[in-house]
Amino acid sequence: MSTIAKQYKVVRTAPEADGKVRLQVRHEKLPVPGRDDVLIRVHAASLNYRDTALLRGEYPAEIKQHVTPVSDGAGEVVAVGHGVTRFKKGDRVANTCTVHWVGGPALPEHRAQMVGFSVDGMLAEYAMLHENGLVHLPDYLTYIEAASLSCAAVTAWTDLNSTTPLLPGQTVLVQGTGGVALFALQFARVFNARVFAITSSDEKAKKLKQLGAEAVINYNTSPDWDEEILRLTDGRGVDKVIDIAGEKTIVKSASSARIGGEVKIVGFASGFGGGLPPIDILKRSLTVTGSAIGSRLNFEAMLRAMAVNEVRPVIDKVYPFAQYLDAYKRLESGQQIGKVVIDVSTEGSGYSG
Amino acid sequence: MSTIAKQYKVVRTAPEADGKVRLQVRHEKLPVPGRDDVLIRVHAASLNYRDTALLRGEYPAEIKQHVTPVSDGAGEVVAVGHGVTRFKKGDRVANTCTVHWVGGPALPEHRAQMVGFSVDGMLAEYAMLHENGLVHLPDYLTYIEAASLSCAAVTAWTDLNSTTPLLPGQTVLVQGTGGVALFALQFARVFNARVFAITSSDEKAKKLKQLGAEAVINYNTSPDWDEEILRLTDGRGVDKVIDIAGEKTIVKSASSARIGGEVKIVGFASGFGGGLPPIDILKRSLTVTGSAIGSRLNFEAMLRAMAVNEVRPVIDKVYPFAQYLDAYKRLESGQQIGKVVIDVSTEGSGYSG
Amino acid sequence: MSTIAKQYKVVRTAPEADGKVRLQVRHEKLPVPGRDDVLIRVHAASLNYRDTALLRGEYPAEIKQHVTPVSDGAGEVVAVGHGVTRFKKGDRVANTCTVHWVGGPALPEHRAQMVGFSVDGMLAEYAMLHENGLVHLPDYLTYIEAASLSCAAVTAWTDLNSTTPLLPGQTVLVQGTGGVALFALQFARVFNARVFAITSSDEKAKKLKQLGAEAVINYNTSPDWDEEILRLTDGRGVDKVIDIAGEKTIVKSASSARIGGEVKIVGFASGFGGGLPPIDILKRSLTVTGSAIGSRLNFEAMLRAMAVNEVRPVIDKVYPFAQYLDAYKRLESGQQIGKVVIDVSTEGSGYSG
Amino acid sequence: MSTIAKQYKVVRTAPEADGKVRLQVRHEKLPVPGRDDVLIRVHAASLNYRDTALLRGEYPAEIKQHVTPVSDGAGEVVAVGHGVTRFKKGDRVANTCTVHWVGGPALPEHRAQMVGFSVDGMLAEYAMLHENGLVHLPDYLTYIEAASLSCAAVTAWTDLNSTTPLLPGQTVLVQGTGGVALFALQFARVFNARVFAITSSDEKAKKLKQLGAEAVINYNTSPDWDEEILRLTDGRGVDKVIDIAGEKTIVKSASSARIGGEVKIVGFASGFGGGLPPIDILKRSLTVTGSAIGSRLNFEAMLRAMAVNEVRPVIDKVYPFAQYLDAYKRLESGQQIGKVVIDVSTEGSGYSG
Repeated sequence: MSTIAKQYKVVRTAPEADGKVRLQVRHEKLPVPGRDDVLIRVHAASLNYRDTALLRGEYPAEIKQHVTPVSDGAGEVVAVGHGVTRFKKGDRVANTCTVHWVGGPALPEHRAQMVGFSVDGMLAEYAMLHENGLVHLPDYLTYIEAASLSCAAVTAWTDLNSTTPLLPGQTVLVQGTGGVALFALQFARVFNARVFAITSSDEKAKKLKQLGAEAVINYNTSPDWDEEILRLTDGRGVDKVIDIAGEKTIVKSASSARIGGEVKIVGFASGFGGGLPPIDILKRSLTVTGSAIGSRLNFEAMLRAMAVNEVRPVIDKVYPFAQYLDAYKRLESGQQIGKVVIDVSTEGSGYSG
Repeated sequence: MSTIAKQYKVVRTAPEADGKVRLQVRHEKLPVPGRDDVLIRVHAASLNYRDTALLRGEYPAEIKQHVTPVSDGAGEVVAVGHGVTRFKKGDRVANTCTVHWVGGPALPEHRAQMVGFSVDGMLAEYAMLHENGLVHLPDYLTYIEAASLSCAAVTAWTDLNSTTPLLPGQTVLVQGTGGVALFALQFARVFNARVFAITSSDEKAKKLKQLGAEAVINYNTSPDWDEEILRLTDGRGVDKVIDIAGEKTIVKSASSARIGGEVKIVGFASGFGGGLPPIDILKRSLTVTGSAIGSRLNFEAMLRAMAVNEVRPVIDKVYPFAQYLDAYKRLESGQQIGKVVIDVSTEGSGYSG
Repeated sequence: MSTIAKQYKVVRTAPEADGKVRLQVRHEKLPVPGRDDVLIRVHAASLNYRDTALLRGEYPAEIKQHVTPVSDGAGEVVAVGHGVTRFKKGDRVANTCTVHWVGGPALPEHRAQMVGFSVDGMLAEYAMLHENGLVHLPDYLTYIEAASLSCAAVTAWTDLNSTTPLLPGQTVLVQGTGGVALFALQFARVFNARVFAITSSDEKAKKLKQLGAEAVINYNTSPDWDEEILRLTDGRGVDKVIDIAGEKTIVKSASSARIGGEVKIVGFASGFGGGLPPIDILKRSLTVTGSAIGSRLNFEAMLRAMAVNEVRPVIDKVYPFAQYLDAYKRLESGQQIGKVVIDVSTEGSGYSG
Repeated sequence: MSTIAKQYKVVRTAPEADGKVRLQVRHEKLPVPGRDDVLIRVHAASLNYRDTALLRGEYPAEIKQHVTPVSDGAGEVVAVGHGVTRFKKGDRVANTCTVHWVGGPALPEHRAQMVGFSVDGMLAEYAMLHENGLVHLPDYLTYIEAASLSCAAVTAWTDLNSTTPLLPGQTVLVQGTGGVALFALQFARVFNARVFAITSSDEKAKKLKQLGAEAVINYNTSPDWDEEILRLTDGRGVDKVIDIAGEKTIVKSASSARIGGEVKIVGFASGFGGGLPPIDILKRSLTVTGSAIGSRLNFEAMLRAMAVNEVRPVIDKVYPFAQYLDAYKRLESGQQIGKVVIDVSTEGSGYSG
């Protein structure tokens, strides 16, 4: 530490006249850990759909300026405050998306604790966070893999496990090949649940089947995919639907669920409009829930579950730090299968470090 | 019993060419209780919105013919099968809407057990039901009052108590002055929860305040009633919304709920269309649930809760059996405050009995 | 059916002067199904520890006389009442231990619905039960296997899944090689939970490891097995303990559980005494629960979970009907690994049928 | 603040040769708030049974030295760190017993966050805590009243609301007239639950009835009080038992609970021995839980519930700061009805301030 007094970090500028947000790199002094803080040498960070929405000026919440973006990252502890009890120098860690959300429900106060939105995020060589917002990594995961978990994986895990417990033999519907969908598929398989998927191409369908999907429907060639789901479940419908796209999927997501089933809304990739008629919810006694990522306890339970089978995140592509904008573009393209990661380690950063 | 070998009962005819369903009165022999059956001398039955929707041909499910309608009733046990253990002759009882739904979640098999829809209902002088589908009445309730509970009250109770427990000091929003709304208001008050209400007239507002509502908003004069609700809760939103009307209320119901709050969809009085944009659910991390009335355990828990304060159902008007069609018309008018009840006791029936 | 008017069935006699209960075989007419009843040609029945305790006069509840014993069985539907909707002739079924416990919590009224205790059980060529108390069998299970599930397997499943959900990567402790312990081990493995076990011999330990136990402790050679469990879990303790023996294990079961962990009490094989000091529960914030077998929904969820991996019950030994007392003796010996089953099919009964 | 640079605070000395712990008063500089810290001018602190057990050397956990004791207090915010978002100077606050337990279950890491045990507590003129561990006070409560809540009231609230929700009309058994028992009684009454109590004298019984107990049993004159409880509940038993004493009450607590009922173990006042036979738990399908106080969300929900009816804590006696050892003696005597509070405000402290 003593020789590294400065770091490269990305920060958001103020929104421009066109509503868009720009990023810039700064070279700054490292922060000094307070009593409960942990200073981390970030090795990798990964992007989520909302990161690109933010740059387009489409993130559905207020945005704080001059904050380092990106909620997901992993790295090595390089210093701790004197009050820190759960971590020591050298520990391998990842961060939670919400600093003090250790357990229990999502709270309004969490809005002021969102990593990469309200507090400095992971697109930097170093990050400093309260120990409440960190988890220990299992040995089998690389930093690149571990950096992909904070938002998408925790969302998938938490949504699979909320409302009612997920059980082996239950059925789950996932949509597409983005981060949350693939994690939901992989985690549901660790539970020995049966997973159905919809996607846009046969190539993506192949990947979904490799990961354990029992059946995959191409929604371009089978636009009435909800009827296919009912057929595949003997007319019953699935126990849980992880709805990724929002506007364009929600009505069919609801009609794919069993009586008393659950629909988890995790994304808004297809737009902010649309609507689910209340009678659709009433007729099937559905529970439709808006996702809120998840707590640190959710993250830790997920890591324990992953470790049993050494589940490995699906990494679409890794970009060096200096090319972080290309990573944003890759996500924007919608072509990715799995997570887009940025390597910010000394070796992989592209900066002199 | 020995002298009464026959009874008057109402049955549905086949739907006519216009899609509507007609009712007719029959004079028939009484059934003989099987091993687990209880024969009840019905004293009163009450109507719900879905009873009128059914006659209009607008009930959103298949309808069995030649079945006695009406899911809600109360009466006296006059005979029991030899296997019955929970009831004896002379007991005062009410029925559940779903015969074998004793506890646990709503199930598809319940569709074949719906009183007044799949199996003979309560608009008759006698009803015979499996003992699983009956509850004991507390002394303080009259048969007229007790007949008003099976659907509306149990729905209100179950929805208040589902997803997360209702707690004293929490906030609840109810809509209108129909059965479910008034029961939800009364029950929430037994929990010492704070209740807000919207309604269409100052007269109805007065009744809502008498029953314990902390504030009532006239949605005709304050069409942005969701903003009022936010103001009344210091910008937080209510913990639970009981949405009665569906199409026309659902969007504002959602924006009246707090972050992490709950919206219970119990009715479709304003239409089958409309829709709740998924982003509205996502942004506030809501849980939106389609109601399924409730189990016998819910009914029994509700009766224990009611008994503490001797809560009395709000009865709009009582009609003699012979004028049961006027009762349907009253409900159709939307003018009622509380429950519309039909007196089918010997004394009140208008038939010779 | 028409040619089989009579059946062999076992019934309990009145308790004798020594408090013990005797069994005798009768040759009786078949019952005729009522409206909701299902008549089953029983193929197999299995014994549980409480069946032997009952004969010794040690069952901790009142016992009804002249009732056919045994709560667990499987067979083929041969006739149904006209109101039956979930089953038809030819269906392969098993029964629940409590006739009308479809879902929700255990209730006092269930005492009058206990198969083999309050109502005629499965140690007979035919059994007649309300359709509420039956489940469909998956094709892959034989009748011998399916007959082993009603009590032990459903108990194991329900206890693993109660209080808090079981998750992949969590840790479970099971005790011995009886029915509940082996099912709990197998089911926990379907969840990809980690299982530890204690047992009395190296031979039994080998079987436990074959079934997926991560580590097995011989409690004869390691009497401080709770310390071993803590060591195996990095000092944390297991998430869930399935306590089988009661008196002799409970204190160490509690000290094997993590802070906030769960202890499920399912049996009383080592005696009715002993006691868990309240400070032990308080210090570790434990939840200690008395098992109540489980509902039909639990049974059905379990079958769906089993089917994913085609989990097969461990059958210790199968006895022909005529030698049913030998089956009781086998269980009494404590030597069994898995379930003791009686084949009551025409072919395997040893009676002329 | 500027003029008050020092404060009087109590700290624990190292345990002496006899195992006992002594307290001493120090005059020290005030701490400076870190980023998320809140500095509070304490007005009052209250004692719990465990505070006296600690001094006797009987607290069942390791004890850190040189720490200011007492987990419960209330006061006024005098300064905040720059990262604090939920509080500002002048706010009236109370603290939680565990600094970062905002929501979710009790965790092992909380052991390092126990106010008055692991971190400096409230028996001082000033206290500094992370904002996670503070709640806003409603106007109607005095500081003396508010200081009585952190441990006993939150325990009572959390235990009443755990495992299954408390409902109006349910039955609760409380024991004695200590803090937890009286809060449990008052809170259960806010739910309109029915409360039974046992106590040692007719005078205390009178107080319990004043607070809303439906029936009170003197356990000296009715040693078989569990039978009385069964009689008072028509043989059913109560839904929830709050067991305070541990060793001497636990067996009868269990036999007072209904089938499927709950026993919450919150204290150990009658000793560390005794034991609940597992068969007692099994026969009644009980859930027996060791209390862990509760989270900040529990505290906040409790305050909202209290505010509806302006529930006032029962204060036994208030001592000036300089006589804090007399407060310990009062609690030791077992004569108290309600909470023993120490006034540490400038006016009431007895120190020059």
